[in-house]
Amino acid sequence: MNKDYIDPRLSAGFNDYLPEESIPRQEMFDTIRGVFELYGFVPLETPGMERIEVLTGGDPNFEKEIFYTKLREGSDGLAMRFDLTVPLARVVARYPDIDKPFKRYQVGPVWRGERPQKGRYREFVQFDADIVGTDEMVADAEIIAVMYAAMKALGVKNFLIRVNNRKILNGLPEYIGFDPELATEAMRIIDKLDKIEWEGVSAALREELGFDDQQLGKLKAFIDLEADTNAGTVKAVRELMADSEVAVEGADELGEIVELVAALGVPDKFWKIDLSIARGMGYYTGPVFEMVLTDLPGIGSVCSGGRYDDLMERFSPVSVPAVGASIGVDRLVAGLVELGLLEKKKIAADVLVLNFDDAAKFAYQELATRLREGGVATEVYYGSEKLLKGQVAYAAKSEYPVVAIIGEDELKRGVVQLKDMKRRKQIEVSLDDVLGAVESILNEAEAS
Amino acid sequence: MNKDYIDPRLSAGFNDYLPEESIPRQEMFDTIRGVFELYGFVPLETPGMERIEVLTGGDPNFEKEIFYTKLREGSDGLAMRFDLTVPLARVVARYPDIDKPFKRYQVGPVWRGERPQKGRYREFVQFDADIVGTDEMVADAEIIAVMYAAMKALGVKNFLIRVNNRKILNGLPEYIGFDPELATEAMRIIDKLDKIEWEGVSAALREELGFDDQQLGKLKAFIDLEADTNAGTVKAVRELMADSEVAVEGADELGEIVELVAALGVPDKFWKIDLSIARGMGYYTGPVFEMVLTDLPGIGSVCSGGRYDDLMERFSPVSVPAVGASIGVDRLVAGLVELGLLEKKKIAADVLVLNFDDAAKFAYQELATRLREGGVATEVYYGSEKLLKGQVAYAAKSEYPVVAIIGEDELKRGVVQLKDMKRRKQIEVSLDDVLGAVESILNEAEAS
Repeated sequence: MNKDYIDPRLSAGFNDYLPEESIPRQEMFDTIRGVFELYGFVPLETPGMERIEVLTGGDPNFEKEIFYTKLREGSDGLAMRFDLTVPLARVVARYPDIDKPFKRYQVGPVWRGERPQKGRYREFVQFDADIVGTDEMVADAEIIAVMYAAMKALGVKNFLIRVNNRKILNGLPEYIGFDPELATEAMRIIDKLDKIEWEGVSAALREELGFDDQQLGKLKAFIDLEADTNAGTVKAVRELMADSEVAVEGADELGEIVELVAALGVPDKFWKIDLSIARGMGYYTGPVFEMVLTDLPGIGSVCSGGRYDDLMERFSPVSVPAVGASIGVDRLVAGLVELGLLEKKKIAADVLVLNFDDAAKFAYQELATRLREGGVATEVYYGSEKLLKGQVAYAAKSEYPVVAIIGEDELKRGVVQLKDMKRRKQIEVSLDDVLGAVESILNEAEAS
Repeated sequence: MNKDYIDPRLSAGFNDYLPEESIPRQEMFDTIRGVFELYGFVPLETPGMERIEVLTGGDPNFEKEIFYTKLREGSDGLAMRFDLTVPLARVVARYPDIDKPFKRYQVGPVWRGERPQKGRYREFVQFDADIVGTDEMVADAEIIAVMYAAMKALGVKNFLIRVNNRKILNGLPEYIGFDPELATEAMRIIDKLDKIEWEGVSAALREELGFDDQQLGKLKAFIDLEADTNAGTVKAVRELMADSEVAVEGADELGEIVELVAALGVPDKFWKIDLSIARGMGYYTGPVFEMVLTDLPGIGSVCSGGRYDDLMERFSPVSVPAVGASIGVDRLVAGLVELGLLEKKKIAADVLVLNFDDAAKFAYQELATRLREGGVATEVYYGSEKLLKGQVAYAAKSEYPVVAIIGEDELKRGVVQLKDMKRRKQIEVSLDDVLGAVESILNEAEAS
């Protein structure tokens, strides 16, 4: 029979995470979850597939981006979620009795019909934490604190959370003196500061929006504004933009955050008020943040967020304020691996019990059971290598820390040979002592 | 403006898991993952969306069941996965260098276009463990052992893993003496034993397939066959069906499993060879298993699986044997909650710091930080209740174990009032002693 086999490839923009990558990812997820729970965040799970109008809110801008789903018989008007914030809003609208502030975290895949390119996926995992139902700045401060604590728990030494307030940016037309209608366009140009520097930005503002010298001077004063401390920056903004009510309100909010974040134990060196952070256009309504790993500036921000007080807009006339942050999982994993803080590894077990003598085949299982009951992750070898030597080589290649050997002689005498693979030592222990002996090899390996 | 608000409902067949349900679900996932890793299983992550031909293998039977996906501009020939086994097969085919046996676990959502009804979802989470690349019965025994260990770790006292071998069932035509072409039809009828008993089954076999008394007698002898021990059942099958080569091979495999499962520390009372287990028709090729919670027979099997040696069929001419099990997450959670082994709870924090005196607002954050740094999950209250009394009532309703109170007087004296909410006791401690005091309240609460 001439059979056509199916190509086992993935579509472009989709990704497999083999154990080597999935083990460190899971480790990172666990650490972050642990930190979120330490701050009282609780998990939420929602489906990947939602009603189209829930996802788009009727806004045709989303229509190009989302994956619609369809059954062969009958369509349901469903599509795949493109973020975790819209489902959060739906949940808050659907269950009005949820205690507020509702502090939830959620981790799960989202789908976007973007053009696949390097580092851009059509399906990727997001990890979000949000606080819904309070407009008090303590929530914003807590989001900053939990981001800080997560990085600490992951072992990151150098990172910076940049914080701004959209209200301050909203005060720019009044402060500089230009038509608020041009604000979006102006912000789009100012956002390019990183790439085209002040020369490029000022030229573009002059040509495209007709800014004059005086206006450009005021903008430059704003952009250059930076004090030695976050409190100092707040004070300077308040003075510079004293004539804009909304900017002063934004500065006051940041002032509150400065005090609260200090009380929450976040040292000043890990976060900084940075007036150039805008974080997109329409979405955020108050404080905004983004985090970078300072040793790896090239990978961009690994976490970002802010306050969005119109969360529920499409579902209800009730205004529900919210603030949150979203971790870019793929970027953060890549960064942590590059910094040596997450280790790629293919195996989950600490001990490999070799399996080369049929007479001992039950003894191998009994030994593994004994170790597992003692909490030591253990595998019995049953790959294709039949000889002791080949199995030891496999164990070395796969980096099992400990190898356990029972041959004819050991079986007779009720003992086990334990190979400490890192220190290349071998000891013989009785079955009753094997758990303790393995634990001490593993402890030594961890300490060294 | 007269705005039309969007209904925040889910489509039928989809589910939200609010924290109250998600907290115990996550707890269960963690426990099961821990057990899988103890046995050396490693995680794998694959996308939810795959190429249609990968999912269906070109079999039109799947076309009704799967959710196709489509972008507004251009379709990609993609659909949502309906299980985790097909993606596993694709991964094994795509990465031929993966070390084998490949022992992987995967947890994630799958989608099926089934007619929504009670207990049937269009999106649900599966939790699978499989061993790919060996036909040795040690793998099958390990799957049984890891299912056993998972139930033990979850605290389940009474459960039963029923085991059969499709090869024994495949020997039935030869043993009974009927056309192998009728085997599928015969098995479909025999599978109804639970519902229509022997009277119904024998009548149907007689009418529909023309079974005579002698054939029915042989079948009855097979169905009734049960010894006191699993080893005894294997021996009895081997004798009864001695003339069918395939049945004897199946019995021999179960015989091996009996010995290996004992060496793996699984007591006989938790698993049983049950010749009536078939687990669907086309898929499995060797041993099959299903697990029930014996105290809750009504919920059906919470885990099932078996050996499927044609895993790779559609991708490659290379034969890759595999065996695995899949946990029915929703059923198992429901069962564990009903058995009192998982607790529904809305909160993740152990301590609620009340927040009723503006003068102490930074002290509240500092206290929370101190407790979190000591590893105690802590929240600062910032809901709508402004008074102490209302906040205490909220803490009681939400079942926080400990409430921490700092008022004007406490602030002055540098102390905290700790309320042990379960035992209705209150103590005053200094800030330096607060971590130890909270820990001892929590330890007492756990012990009681």
